[in-house]
Amino acid sequence: MPPDFDTNMKFKFSILALFLEVIVIVLYGIFVDYDPDPSSSLYPHFQDVHVMIFVGFGFLMTFLKKYGFSSVGFNMLIAAFGLQWGILVQGFWHMERGKISVNIESMINADFSTATALISFGALLGKTSPIQMLILTLLEITMFACNEHLVTKVFKATDVGASMTIHAFGAYFGLAAAFVLYRPGLTNKHENDESTYHSDMFAMIGTLFLWLFWPSFNSAIADAQVTAIINTYYSLAACTVVTFALSSLVDKRGKFSMVLIQNATLAGGVAVGTCADLEIHPFSAMFIGVIAGMVSVLGFQFLTPVMASKLKIQDTCGVHNLHGLPGILGGIAGIIVTAVKTEIRNGHVLTPALQAAALGSTLGIAIVGGALTGAILKLPFLGQVSDQNCFDDSAYWEVPEEETIPEIYSRHREEHNRFEAAM
Amino acid sequence: MPPDFDTNMKFKFSILALFLEVIVIVLYGIFVDYDPDPSSSLYPHFQDVHVMIFVGFGFLMTFLKKYGFSSVGFNMLIAAFGLQWGILVQGFWHMERGKISVNIESMINADFSTATALISFGALLGKTSPIQMLILTLLEITMFACNEHLVTKVFKATDVGASMTIHAFGAYFGLAAAFVLYRPGLTNKHENDESTYHSDMFAMIGTLFLWLFWPSFNSAIADAQVTAIINTYYSLAACTVVTFALSSLVDKRGKFSMVLIQNATLAGGVAVGTCADLEIHPFSAMFIGVIAGMVSVLGFQFLTPVMASKLKIQDTCGVHNLHGLPGILGGIAGIIVTAVKTEIRNGHVLTPALQAAALGSTLGIAIVGGALTGAILKLPFLGQVSDQNCFDDSAYWEVPEEETIPEIYSRHREEHNRFEAAM
Amino acid sequence: MPPDFDTNMKFKFSILALFLEVIVIVLYGIFVDYDPDPSSSLYPHFQDVHVMIFVGFGFLMTFLKKYGFSSVGFNMLIAAFGLQWGILVQGFWHMERGKISVNIESMINADFSTATALISFGALLGKTSPIQMLILTLLEITMFACNEHLVTKVFKATDVGASMTIHAFGAYFGLAAAFVLYRPGLTNKHENDESTYHSDMFAMIGTLFLWLFWPSFNSAIADAQVTAIINTYYSLAACTVVTFALSSLVDKRGKFSMVLIQNATLAGGVAVGTCADLEIHPFSAMFIGVIAGMVSVLGFQFLTPVMASKLKIQDTCGVHNLHGLPGILGGIAGIIVTAVKTEIRNGHVLTPALQAAALGSTLGIAIVGGALTGAILKLPFLGQVSDQNCFDDSAYWEVPEEETIPEIYSRHREEHNRFEAAM
Repeated sequence: MPPDFDTNMKFKFSILALFLEVIVIVLYGIFVDYDPDPSSSLYPHFQDVHVMIFVGFGFLMTFLKKYGFSSVGFNMLIAAFGLQWGILVQGFWHMERGKISVNIESMINADFSTATALISFGALLGKTSPIQMLILTLLEITMFACNEHLVTKVFKATDVGASMTIHAFGAYFGLAAAFVLYRPGLTNKHENDESTYHSDMFAMIGTLFLWLFWPSFNSAIADAQVTAIINTYYSLAACTVVTFALSSLVDKRGKFSMVLIQNATLAGGVAVGTCADLEIHPFSAMFIGVIAGMVSVLGFQFLTPVMASKLKIQDTCGVHNLHGLPGILGGIAGIIVTAVKTEIRNGHVLTPALQAAALGSTLGIAIVGGALTGAILKLPFLGQVSDQNCFDDSAYWEVPEEETIPEIYSRHREEHNRFEAAM
Repeated sequence: MPPDFDTNMKFKFSILALFLEVIVIVLYGIFVDYDPDPSSSLYPHFQDVHVMIFVGFGFLMTFLKKYGFSSVGFNMLIAAFGLQWGILVQGFWHMERGKISVNIESMINADFSTATALISFGALLGKTSPIQMLILTLLEITMFACNEHLVTKVFKATDVGASMTIHAFGAYFGLAAAFVLYRPGLTNKHENDESTYHSDMFAMIGTLFLWLFWPSFNSAIADAQVTAIINTYYSLAACTVVTFALSSLVDKRGKFSMVLIQNATLAGGVAVGTCADLEIHPFSAMFIGVIAGMVSVLGFQFLTPVMASKLKIQDTCGVHNLHGLPGILGGIAGIIVTAVKTEIRNGHVLTPALQAAALGSTLGIAIVGGALTGAILKLPFLGQVSDQNCFDDSAYWEVPEEETIPEIYSRHREEHNRFEAAM
Repeated sequence: MPPDFDTNMKFKFSILALFLEVIVIVLYGIFVDYDPDPSSSLYPHFQDVHVMIFVGFGFLMTFLKKYGFSSVGFNMLIAAFGLQWGILVQGFWHMERGKISVNIESMINADFSTATALISFGALLGKTSPIQMLILTLLEITMFACNEHLVTKVFKATDVGASMTIHAFGAYFGLAAAFVLYRPGLTNKHENDESTYHSDMFAMIGTLFLWLFWPSFNSAIADAQVTAIINTYYSLAACTVVTFALSSLVDKRGKFSMVLIQNATLAGGVAVGTCADLEIHPFSAMFIGVIAGMVSVLGFQFLTPVMASKLKIQDTCGVHNLHGLPGILGGIAGIIVTAVKTEIRNGHVLTPALQAAALGSTLGIAIVGGALTGAILKLPFLGQVSDQNCFDDSAYWEVPEEETIPEIYSRHREEHNRFEAAM
């Protein structure tokens, strides 16, 4: 194997991870302190979001037949490092007397920040090493924090459920990185790039916990919390019915597809995010969910194959259809709503122009940042896998051995003899 | 295959689902609005109930070896449609100035309403199409809302944890439908009507989340919330110990049975529902749990086989033992408690006569409604499966292909050669 | 099979379980009553802890390939009985007018008490019968309640997250029992004492729910709740990054090991427990997490094999590394913090001497109590398994039959013929 595809991470991964952890602890020692006036009222919301990040995202990606350890394990690694880093780069913009305060709300925001890296991980799933993913996490969360500051403080745009700043950002960042890291050798479907019956069941655990707690995600930092909960609940419900309808419709024999049920049912939560806390009325929320479900199903069915073959963007989990397009849809819904109704946030009137600027800056920073990050990840010696070993846990994990053929043979012979003897 | 068993749902399912979703959105546009005075204090309770409906019920039914996609997927479809419909038919009875208010409490009630259809789904599991289940959901939730109004507003009976109005109702509705949809071809055990090791493990995810959050279910809309939590907690704990004891006792070699642990451990939550918020004392709650566990184990062991063979009621999940009998037990406990102690709810004295009327009306409406619904579901062209294809996801889902024999052979030959070469 | 290894539990298990349940109900009738002044403010915390006990501990132990039913099932049995018993023996120390009050806080404490028995179960996993585990639960929770009283009321030591009183106690109790129950026949690795791909995935469900809700565990009964949440969150995050780093470092090819990711990532939650509510600063919490991760990884890698071979302590789940050593670490951290800073709890200054006394009494009572309990469990007729049947559900459960070889042959032949016919 050429050194470019040396998946032996011994020392390399450990040194990088320990180095980053030491840096983080030193920075916390200098800059971070408890909020002197803490409140636990958001703690149930925090826990729901926490479950989404670790169980939701983690298990959603376990659909691949041989990549479950990596999906749920690297998801945990990325999130555990990312949430420490997120507090620092988000808090950097709001320091008071040289200190960053930690409280439940900033912990929610830190969990949020990791979602961007986890979404990008979905696009790159099976094709990147843990070393690459740690670097991506570091860079992406930093750029996310800058864009988030731009959107919320400079443009003073609303994006309460983060359709733009998290979902669209994470998706296009990941897709740009995937474009740079394009693998021609994966043009034909890789034999490991598919699910099994049980891996699809594990993925449904992820889907359901994301689906159930999405109202908490969209309302966690909202003022009109109940409105955000209600809108998200209805958008998801309507999206789910439409996803089932279209999943059957686009299949030649009218059958449902697990990949659509696992993913497109969630698009309603993404798309309603920007407007979640606005009084758009439940039926509008449902309408947003319907459009999101349609866009997402059609994206999976028709766009993803074309992106892989024509645009050289290999999107393992289809994050473009779950986070990218529905995220843009959420941004557009925000533009429309602020054009139609006068909405005020923190004493400022929301304007469609600034909402559009927020969407534009998000996409621009994500694509440029993702491409640059992809270029960095191309550096040799970062533990890359060869095309052949993609989508396979055994590149980075001790995997329990399956029985070998000689073992199966001898076991079968034994059982067979026992069976014959018993006759 | 005769047209009666045409599982090709293309167009049929999609048109029905989209049509229903459009109707619902229009009705929401006309009748539904945000509660002007929202409170989020019940949101943690709501989330617990939400997890029970989607993860609890969904995974509990994944025990069948080839029906996991349908169990967790159709559960999601039924619940996502049902919760939209539930607000309308429940809210219809409490409109103010022509509007139905949505708040966290009405979302809890809507989630509750879907439980009836999900319980009935358990009786029919593996034998009905998604088209049939959407129709059943529509009809059952409508009838449930009428019966619930009758029980709580006309009879002014108490049923805080819904032993009668949800559990007994859902069970007998489903059993009546199963009777009408009786399949003589399934008299002998179907080869797919069994579990595997891993499907039983997935089902335990459902069991545990139901078990854990049942105190939230029974206390969600109670005034004496902590009392309802405590009573349910103890009823479930006692029921669990007794279920293990009896599971071993009824087995000829003293072994535990997964079907009993997965189901009968939950009967204590059902049976204590009606009285959950009454000060019956923890030891009475435990006693109710003990009786519920005994009834449920004996039901699974002795009654379900007889019901299938003699009464022509094929109850796939044994909902009669988990929801039916314990639901009636809960109703009876309510009658006894109101006979023994004077209990006042909303300024009315609870009377055993009205509690009995509530139980009677529930059973009557459930059985008649279920039978009528079953007759409607018998209409041809609703995507029914043939007996042979029962309990099999592949009728309605794209299922990941298992290796074919020639593939296994060639892989084995290859491995074998490699093995021999290495010797 | 000699009677010592008669796993037939018929009557024996059932009679014991029913007898214990009847005793418990009678004691509740006499001694237990509702708290007259209930509050539901801790209910979300309770539910998080509840999920940890039943889903977290239960699924964490499902990593063995043939012991999933027992892991999650006996976990449920132990916890369901233990939480009833825990209220009694904990409440015995705080009775008022002859009554033990039940409220959400005492339910949290009861759930806590079961954790000791579940940790000990981890050490004994696969080698004990349900009869033995019921007896162990009864005895261990009783001794736990005495030691807890000693630590918190006599020594007036702090141990808010129970690093000492639950984690170290449960671990050393279980290890002492394992020492007494040493099985020379298991010196060579048992063929069932290993994981499969899917069993490792199920175990990650347990890991994640423990990891996510550990801040609730450590803060549930704290006054400075938010501080305890923040410290635990950071300790776990830092511990996780370090665990990944060291897992790669100790492997000869630099690969991650599932057993380390499943377990050592949690050590940070254990070790920060004693000091969780003290204002130790987030970076100190992270430092504790780093040390805990290192100790735990090194323990799994180097200590557990030596303990089994030299010290005759067979620790199936490695609870020494997840609960034992990190629990002691937590106790030592408590000694150091109280030596360095003046901390006041309930009007008393915490002193390092009394913290050390608490740690010492915990270890002493655990080891003596565990050894005595192990001796009792050695009594014949308690349903012990033979060495050969260790780590195998089929000793105590009806397990779904796998296909026999003749069935596989005939199915293959059929498919093969169909394949040839189609050519």
